[in-house]
Amino acid sequence: VLLLLLLLVAHGAPRRYTPDWQSLDSRPLPAWFDKAKFGVFVHWGLFSVPAWGSEWFWWHWEGERLPSYQRFMSDNYPPGFSYADFGPQFTARFFQPEQWAELFEAAGAKYVVLTTKHHEGFTNWPSSVSWNWNSKDVGPHRDLVGELGAALRMRNIRYGLYHSLLEWFHPLYLLDKKNGLKTQHFVTAKTMPELYDLVNRYKPDLIWSDGEWECPDSYWNSTGFLAWLYNDSPVKDEVVVNDRWGQNCSCHHGGYYNCQDKYTPHSLPDHKWEMCTSIDRASWGYRRDMTMSTIASESEIIAELVQTVSLGGNYLLNIGPTKDGLIVPIFQERLLAVGKWLQVNGEAIYASKPWRVQSEKNTTFLWYTSKESDVYAIFLHWPENGILNLKSPETTSSTMITMLGIEGDLKWTQEPQEDLLISLPSLPPHALPVEFAWTIKLTDVK
Amino acid sequence: VLLLLLLLVAHGAPRRYTPDWQSLDSRPLPAWFDKAKFGVFVHWGLFSVPAWGSEWFWWHWEGERLPSYQRFMSDNYPPGFSYADFGPQFTARFFQPEQWAELFEAAGAKYVVLTTKHHEGFTNWPSSVSWNWNSKDVGPHRDLVGELGAALRMRNIRYGLYHSLLEWFHPLYLLDKKNGLKTQHFVTAKTMPELYDLVNRYKPDLIWSDGEWECPDSYWNSTGFLAWLYNDSPVKDEVVVNDRWGQNCSCHHGGYYNCQDKYTPHSLPDHKWEMCTSIDRASWGYRRDMTMSTIASESEIIAELVQTVSLGGNYLLNIGPTKDGLIVPIFQERLLAVGKWLQVNGEAIYASKPWRVQSEKNTTFLWYTSKESDVYAIFLHWPENGILNLKSPETTSSTMITMLGIEGDLKWTQEPQEDLLISLPSLPPHALPVEFAWTIKLTDVK
Amino acid sequence: VLLLLLLLVAHGAPRRYTPDWQSLDSRPLPAWFDKAKFGVFVHWGLFSVPAWGSEWFWWHWEGERLPSYQRFMSDNYPPGFSYADFGPQFTARFFQPEQWAELFEAAGAKYVVLTTKHHEGFTNWPSSVSWNWNSKDVGPHRDLVGELGAALRMRNIRYGLYHSLLEWFHPLYLLDKKNGLKTQHFVTAKTMPELYDLVNRYKPDLIWSDGEWECPDSYWNSTGFLAWLYNDSPVKDEVVVNDRWGQNCSCHHGGYYNCQDKYTPHSLPDHKWEMCTSIDRASWGYRRDMTMSTIASESEIIAELVQTVSLGGNYLLNIGPTKDGLIVPIFQERLLAVGKWLQVNGEAIYASKPWRVQSEKNTTFLWYTSKESDVYAIFLHWPENGILNLKSPETTSSTMITMLGIEGDLKWTQEPQEDLLISLPSLPPHALPVEFAWTIKLTDVK
Amino acid sequence: VLLLLLLLVAHGAPRRYTPDWQSLDSRPLPAWFDKAKFGVFVHWGLFSVPAWGSEWFWWHWEGERLPSYQRFMSDNYPPGFSYADFGPQFTARFFQPEQWAELFEAAGAKYVVLTTKHHEGFTNWPSSVSWNWNSKDVGPHRDLVGELGAALRMRNIRYGLYHSLLEWFHPLYLLDKKNGLKTQHFVTAKTMPELYDLVNRYKPDLIWSDGEWECPDSYWNSTGFLAWLYNDSPVKDEVVVNDRWGQNCSCHHGGYYNCQDKYTPHSLPDHKWEMCTSIDRASWGYRRDMTMSTIASESEIIAELVQTVSLGGNYLLNIGPTKDGLIVPIFQERLLAVGKWLQVNGEAIYASKPWRVQSEKNTTFLWYTSKESDVYAIFLHWPENGILNLKSPETTSSTMITMLGIEGDLKWTQEPQEDLLISLPSLPPHALPVEFAWTIKLTDVK
Repeated sequence: VLLLLLLLVAHGAPRRYTPDWQSLDSRPLPAWFDKAKFGVFVHWGLFSVPAWGSEWFWWHWEGERLPSYQRFMSDNYPPGFSYADFGPQFTARFFQPEQWAELFEAAGAKYVVLTTKHHEGFTNWPSSVSWNWNSKDVGPHRDLVGELGAALRMRNIRYGLYHSLLEWFHPLYLLDKKNGLKTQHFVTAKTMPELYDLVNRYKPDLIWSDGEWECPDSYWNSTGFLAWLYNDSPVKDEVVVNDRWGQNCSCHHGGYYNCQDKYTPHSLPDHKWEMCTSIDRASWGYRRDMTMSTIASESEIIAELVQTVSLGGNYLLNIGPTKDGLIVPIFQERLLAVGKWLQVNGEAIYASKPWRVQSEKNTTFLWYTSKESDVYAIFLHWPENGILNLKSPETTSSTMITMLGIEGDLKWTQEPQEDLLISLPSLPPHALPVEFAWTIKLTDVK
Repeated sequence: VLLLLLLLVAHGAPRRYTPDWQSLDSRPLPAWFDKAKFGVFVHWGLFSVPAWGSEWFWWHWEGERLPSYQRFMSDNYPPGFSYADFGPQFTARFFQPEQWAELFEAAGAKYVVLTTKHHEGFTNWPSSVSWNWNSKDVGPHRDLVGELGAALRMRNIRYGLYHSLLEWFHPLYLLDKKNGLKTQHFVTAKTMPELYDLVNRYKPDLIWSDGEWECPDSYWNSTGFLAWLYNDSPVKDEVVVNDRWGQNCSCHHGGYYNCQDKYTPHSLPDHKWEMCTSIDRASWGYRRDMTMSTIASESEIIAELVQTVSLGGNYLLNIGPTKDGLIVPIFQERLLAVGKWLQVNGEAIYASKPWRVQSEKNTTFLWYTSKESDVYAIFLHWPENGILNLKSPETTSSTMITMLGIEGDLKWTQEPQEDLLISLPSLPPHALPVEFAWTIKLTDVK
Repeated sequence: VLLLLLLLVAHGAPRRYTPDWQSLDSRPLPAWFDKAKFGVFVHWGLFSVPAWGSEWFWWHWEGERLPSYQRFMSDNYPPGFSYADFGPQFTARFFQPEQWAELFEAAGAKYVVLTTKHHEGFTNWPSSVSWNWNSKDVGPHRDLVGELGAALRMRNIRYGLYHSLLEWFHPLYLLDKKNGLKTQHFVTAKTMPELYDLVNRYKPDLIWSDGEWECPDSYWNSTGFLAWLYNDSPVKDEVVVNDRWGQNCSCHHGGYYNCQDKYTPHSLPDHKWEMCTSIDRASWGYRRDMTMSTIASESEIIAELVQTVSLGGNYLLNIGPTKDGLIVPIFQERLLAVGKWLQVNGEAIYASKPWRVQSEKNTTFLWYTSKESDVYAIFLHWPENGILNLKSPETTSSTMITMLGIEGDLKWTQEPQEDLLISLPSLPPHALPVEFAWTIKLTDVK
Repeated sequence: VLLLLLLLVAHGAPRRYTPDWQSLDSRPLPAWFDKAKFGVFVHWGLFSVPAWGSEWFWWHWEGERLPSYQRFMSDNYPPGFSYADFGPQFTARFFQPEQWAELFEAAGAKYVVLTTKHHEGFTNWPSSVSWNWNSKDVGPHRDLVGELGAALRMRNIRYGLYHSLLEWFHPLYLLDKKNGLKTQHFVTAKTMPELYDLVNRYKPDLIWSDGEWECPDSYWNSTGFLAWLYNDSPVKDEVVVNDRWGQNCSCHHGGYYNCQDKYTPHSLPDHKWEMCTSIDRASWGYRRDMTMSTIASESEIIAELVQTVSLGGNYLLNIGPTKDGLIVPIFQERLLAVGKWLQVNGEAIYASKPWRVQSEKNTTFLWYTSKESDVYAIFLHWPENGILNLKSPETTSSTMITMLGIEGDLKWTQEPQEDLLISLPSLPPHALPVEFAWTIKLTDVK
């Protein structure tokens, strides 16, 4: 039998995964993901209707019963108004998926991840096990997941589906918890049917699992689902998943690692990871009353992107659309700023690999990436004296040094065993290729 | 084994029913139902929000797509408004179950049947398999089924639960139908959990099944449910059911028979039955634009009640409350009129039995009921000459004849083999015990 | 000059009224009004939206700040919800004026009075001095006053316009009151323009003034308006007005007298009057939560009508339509019952005159009307012995006595100086012409 | 008499203006206005509810009946929905005037102009002649004009009130137009009472009149109002007005001149003017569906500000808050960017005067301002060679040249009759005082 198996493998017969982490973790990550580097995350749901506090509105209000949320409701709604009553106000009336896709493309995103269902349980597609609690029956009366997917595919942007395993208030989930998780009514009736439906219906490139933390993967049937996903699903070859599939799973099992939200490692990890964060630092979902104080600046965002890619990660930047289906201008502006920066510096980002050194210790704010024998040094602060001082690269006789976005070679010198000194061009402000985070390309260095 | 079983039966061990009609049909009808005679039917649900057309609003609109319903929606609601969007408007804000119960008691009703879930699928109780599509999560934010039940029990009124097996638009039901009913996703996930939940939670005296006609009872698992209901449920001794449990089942199997809506037999059936009808002849659910032209008059209602009881049936008279939880005055008035009539004539109705004759052939509008050796003749038209002429009763030496509500005996004569002639009292209008349908009580007749 | 005036009068030149009560009160009441006898009053406005409490909703809520009204608002609406916010919900979507007119005609009404503007100030027509606070700009988006008028005229029903002089919360009215009524900003800017507009635009047969009690007629400019109305308006010949034109005016000046709401005199007044009352005893405006306990019965209504006409009054019976523009069935039923009664007994009502005696002292519940030498005796209780005993009429040799709705003469006897004794027909209940309040017609009596 | 007048003037007795342009135009502009230079314009009203198209929504929809507006309404609202029906949705629920004032102060604004009433006629204060069509009775239920004023005064920001003379659909205005403007019903009943009320109630520093174009000032009674404003109003000493007071008035009469919206002169005018423009180039009112394509960039805004001040104008930059009372982040960001620029360069702007030269012809994008013997040269493009070449200033022996925001003097040379050549500092990007529009200060130049 072993022999037969070996023969099959040898002949290219597809390997089959078994529903356990040892087997599932052995699957190689499909190559597109590491090359993509930059994606856009979209949090959209019923929480976009109150658009206040955060996408955890319901939980803060009726789970934790925070006074500020109680007051928000009593100040603004009639007594007895329920979360479900927000449904009809989720109109998505201005939602034009082609416009979103155009914006995401202009931002340089290679993949987009949409919340198909957040912890509230409301599905953004017509799930047959979420009747009258989905975007087709209530509110938008549209298949939001399907429409965005179609628009993204027209532009060759990869499509990821965020899916929450738990639903805070689903009565069957509460029942299972009351039963000490010895029953799986909720998983059987809701979670699994929906995950299979999502895969079969929308053929996602990525499944961004969440809401796993209260129960072990055995409750969620995660490994069974992943084995099917990898072996038999219509996306078995290309699909990528993250690591949130059960208690103690995150950062240890699954596809690439997210670890915690907004997690960034200090040094180069040995496993592919993704840093997810939100332009509005205080919320993933849209908040009507955002002020500039919580909105990441363009330079903060670009600095995060550079650091993340240098450390081998992907950068997934979140925006929260309005209940009308609009992406407000401040988010447009930030995304377009990333896109503008990537138009000049994308060569150092997309499909790059971490270099042997990630950042220069003495040179603040400088990060490396590489592509074969080329090395890219991205510096965030322009040195006062106009001389960029690099410790790690060793030049060769064929080394050439340029700045992305500027014609012509830069002058440089390097004495043996000494730092590489690069003369930066002296340019008036408007002649700089970008306003922040300039990329030096070094060919044939070691 | 057989011996043992016989012994058990002999010793009063409860008989167990098997899940087939032969066994289930053999169960004796609990006695309370035949004695009750008069009940009130209540159709309440999301259809009470548009309150137009009928309780089949959704089907006419989006199933059949009738132009008049399409126009109603486009004239009155924004484009894209869905049936589920009616949810938040179903406020029940004035619903006071004690007031309803007081009214139903004053109407003389011995049982009340409430729609727990109509064909629309919206449940009037917090069903855990109808999340966010029930009266606790959406709209009233109350357990309507539970609250009415509690109020009825305070007044010793029996409580019946209407339940529709089918749901027009439930995606799992549509899926099963698409599969030629070879799958039972819907029954497993929705119908059966809800029926068991209703019984365990509310301990109904009656289950008024409906919505059975598209599928055989084998699809619905009806016999399995009924076997449990009769053998093991908390209401196994007292519960009554009707006959709508699958295609070709109505009028043939189950508990008492409804046959079609508003069905009345021509002669005395050999099986207990119930005639259900609605004060608003044109709808079971509330219609805002009712006019007097479709509202049954007091005399029509009392005539139907009398005829039904005479023919061995129960009379279940329907009203449709408003979305606010109110019973409009015209319905109050009709119900109170029945109650007033029953205060005088109830003796001839409650706990009565059909007599050997139901109605006099030559005497129009005269119906008999009986109680042991007493016979009641209820006449709907007062004879011009003041002499009531009865063909069927044979008087005896001890016969006494009175009119209910009037003191003193009436004069009468009967020659052998001849009609019984009764002299009705000559009274001014306001001295009559009722305005319509007077009851003559004959003791010791044959 | 006197001579000239006399000549003018003699030649039929129209007399001109001066703006003082002496002159205005001298105007003869146009004849149609006394002949009409029965009218329908319609209270419709923004108060029909909350439809709770009464048409004084706003005042009770924000004027008196009654706790029950405060609670009603806080229980059912979000904080800060204002009375004006009810506007968009006043849809009148089912309002079909032809149906109303048909119903009022079937009720036997000869005139209909509609609230064009109640104390809330919201106008049911597009008043140019009530911009965005009228039924054309807000809510129905229709000219309710105009539409109902057109439908009534098609059926030759006279049209009366109710108009409130005061508006509880109008800022200019409050300003005038603060100024001790020394300014008339409100009267100049609102009341008078609207009264003139109503008359010129809709040419009413009747103006039913109200809301006069806080200010003298000099503040309201009432006499000036009435002088114009009687001298120069397009309805100067036929228009009728009531008596509410200023403090201490009611029951003393104007056209016919209403005195207080629901006022009935004890004996025949020497001035034409009208008794207004409401089917819902507890409110003039529609209340969603009406119960039968406050709804006048058919016999109460007919008894009031008979008494009122016998005492020389007109009877104006009120209904409150819903915000949807519907007249609920209980009101339909009552109105149709009046109409049915009038079909038989209208001869004794319409165009009748009070007789020399109004009611028999010893004969309870008997009221007289007359028409030339015919006298009508309407008795409300059928005598036990079938003999109607009348004290006042003196028969003559040509006297004939009949019952309206019954063919043939009745037997009667009258000894000189004795009571008239009439033998009533002995009929089974369904053969009576009406169920209540039968009319005996006596020809050629004194 | 002349002597007496002269004496009065000499003794400081206040001069009185007569209601004609000759007199009114002779009034000196209160000094604060020219010194202020930069203000924020706020367009807020019912148009903020649809928040689509522009603040002319109502006119485009129901005046011009543009198909796109008709479609917007039919796509999103039920049939019959009127503009007034938007009222209850104008909640202003997050409106915190202190936050607005803090933002405007941080933007460097010295005055703020709020729409108290736009052409729609809805007033943002409780006008007693706009009952139930104002922000106190409907929607916010707050005095928006008053609340913002109080917050601005706390920060010593001057307060201007925008007021539209015309109201597109006011019935009295339509009536006056129908009468060929021979009547002034509208002016008497609405415009004038409101203007006087605004002045007496809020004591504005500025009245920004608009909506004048359809009628001559004689119709509007403008000169009468202005004479009162200048002679007797509580703000007679400090109040400033613009030039929109009647047909052919703009750019010719009144206080300072706006001429057309967004008007900029080509050379230095001899009359104080103001350039008003909007961050959203396509609308003054908030539009939900704005995209970055119509939003002015920071450098465009600053360039406009510089040019305007150099040419003697004030710059009034508009933002449109949401119906919730929020200023969206993109507007916050732009305003804060102006404030940040002014913190460095405000010395060259506030209280400056136009210099004898406004801009250098050969040196593109360079604008002058002055303060006594100091001259400020603001250049928008950094010269490639780092040498700023100025034609107009003539240096003196005591001349010093610096760059605002940078310590130390700059090197410069000027040969007689030659250009002044200034060596700009060579700085890395982050060391520049601002990113755009740098100010060179020249002391003691001619």
